This record gives sequence, structure tokens and C-alpha cells, in this order.
Amino acid sequence: MKKDLGVVPAVFPMPVLMIGTYDADGVPDVMNAAWGTICDMDKVALCLGEHQTTKNIAQTGAFTVAIADAAHVKEADFFGIASAGKMADKFARSGMTAVKSTRVNAPIVEEFPLTMECTLLEQVRTESVEMVIGKIVNVVADECVLDEKGKVDAEKLGAISFDQFGKNYLTMGAKIAGAWKAGVPLMQD
Amino acid sequence: MKKDLGVVPAVFPMPVLMIGTYDADGVPDVMNAAWGTICDMDKVALCLGEHQTTKNIAQTGAFTVAIADAAHVKEADFFGIASAGKMADKFARSGMTAVKSTRVNAPIVEEFPLTMECTLLEQVRTESVEMVIGKIVNVVADECVLDEKGKVDAEKLGAISFDQFGKNYLTMGAKIAGAWKAGVPLMQD
Repeated sequence: MKKDLGVVPAVFPMPVLMIGTYDADGVPDVMNAAWGTICDMDKVALCLGEHQTTKNIAQTGAFTVAIADAAHVKEADFFGIASAGKMADKFARSGMTAVKSTRVNAPIVEEFPLTMECTLLEQVRTESVEMVIGKIVNVVADECVLDEKGKVDAEKLGAISFDQFGKNYLTMGAKIAGAWKAGVPLMQD
Repeated sequence: MKKDLGVVPAVFPMPVLMIGTYDADGVPDVMNAAWGTICDMDKVALCLGEHQTTKNIAQTGAFTVAIADAAHVKEADFFGIASAGKMADKFARSGMTAVKSTRVNAPIVEEFPLTMECTLLEQVRTESVEMVIGKIVNVVADECVLDEKGKVDAEKLGAISFDQFGKNYLTMGAKIAGAWKAGVPLMQD
């Protein structure tokens, strides 16, 4: 039985993206953003709204995007509910460690397992959408989330997802099938 | 110990979105897309590239976005590896059931648990990005994925995620913390 729910932003899973920037004084800030996606093999698109983060990106032309993990769900949520505009010591309160990227003018938070270092390509503003488009110039990962070939093992990441329906964070489960493999039987006559 | 991985599209989790459209003859098609996000409370942004789906959306001005679930990972993957341009019976081969939406000119696949019905707002093309922006006009859900208040229960959805690192699909785990709640202790002095 199908039910109509009306207008609901029903993409799931959503990522829990940690957007790292410096303000004009070089103070690190991190914002929690679920509305983001890869938009090309070397690009990320973020819908951020108006925040300290968007001001910082416009000024520095750079940002980092880290993947929040279950071990830091408290800090990740704090980065979503605290505003750097109203709380000058926002990042310091998190107890996390910011190290300047060697490639872009933005902070890497040491405790998160995986971070994209990005430069600002474009602030897209059309009649229907506002987005920050970033070029991924490098990714830094904790060695412990890599497989024996040096690639990220999604299960080892310990990533979390944002559930916009119930306003929760969820852990990730296990690999169940290979992409470009599970559907092969339906390809054959 | 941090390792440099170079340029990697490192957003995780990515959703497994099933984009449903009709072609000029009214034949249903479904495409598998991981590069999509909510971009406003009533809007979805999809990076689809050039496919039968993008032609169909341009013609009909409508599409559906369903959330793939673990019970249909084989079909979801098939929708990603088969091309409607080369396989005239693509949708029929999936064995799934397409029913025309009563609100938009696009098919709803009965077997998927949650579907957004969308109209095309804009095809955004800038120097750095190409995106389809859709307006969510309604969401239809299987009763069995709703909680007692009639809202989607993310755990009941049985959704899957696309892992671009290892080219796998993963299940979702359990709720671990409330958003706007987990970080509250860090807000206090």
C-alpha cells in the first residue's frame, strides 16, 4: 500500500560532510552539511545556504570536505548546531585539532578519517539553486581506513549518514554486492 | 598516519537514486545515479551526464527519484549498467512494475519503497557543472517504511549506498544519535 507524504526532501542516505574553512583572521571553522554531492570525478557541489562558511570560502577560495565518522558524531553534530558567527570559540570548543592543508588555504581536522582538499571553482546562483562548486586537488586519509592496495575501504571508514526524515545519524552497514556486477544476470539473454 | 590519495571523488555515503522517465513513445526507463543531492526543502539536484534519461527529462519535463533498497540491489545495478539507447527492452528485462504517476509525466516503480515525483525546474549548465534541478511535488512511500506517525523510518527503508572507492553497494546501519542533540553538551559552558 502506497501513501502520499507530500513534499519531503527524501534523498537517503545523505552524507555528513564537514566543511572546513579559515575566516579572515585565520581562525578555523567547520560546518556540518548534508546537502552535497560529487558532480564530476574531480568536483564537489555543496548547497550551504548563508553561513560563516560561505563567507570564508568567498574570501579564501578554498575549503576542505571531511567525512564524519561514528567516533565523532558528537563533534559533527556540534558543528551543525553551533554558529561561528555567534560563538567565537566554536572550533576550539570541539576539542578537535585543525592543521593547515599544504595545498589549499583551509584546515584539515586531524581526527576525521578522510578529507578532500578543495579550491573554489564557482559559486553557482541561478533562479532555482545556489551552490558552491569545488575542485578536489587531493584527498588525505588515515592509513587505517585503507585496504592493502591503498584504496579507501568503505567499511573501515566508520562513516555516518544524516537521516532528514527522523533527524538522526545512522551508521553504515556492510558490503552486499558489487556495482557493475550485481545486475549482470539481467543483461544476458 | 595520513596518506595522500590524489584526486578521488570521496563523498560517502552516496545514495543509489533510481531516476524514472518516459521516452517519446511512453516507454519507461530507469537510470541509476549516485551523484545527486537535495538542494532545498523541495528541490533535488542531479548530475546525470548524457543519457537516455536526460533526453527524456528534456522532453517530458518530469522524472521520479526512487531510493533503491537492498531487496532490489540486482535490479538497481542493472539500471546502472544497461543502456536504454542500446537495449530497447531495458525496463521490461528488470521484471519491475512501472505505474504512471498521477502528478507528473513519469513512472513510479512499484517495488521501490520511496519515490519523489518531480517536475523539471532547470537544466543548469555553467563552466564547471551540469545539473538537472527538479521540484519535488510529492513523495509516495510504502506503508511498511513509515513509523506510527506516518513519517519515513530510515531503518525500515532498507536503503543501500554506493561506494565509489571499491565499487560496491553497502547496506545502512542503525541510528546512533539524534541530530541537533548529540552535540548539545559542547554548546554548554
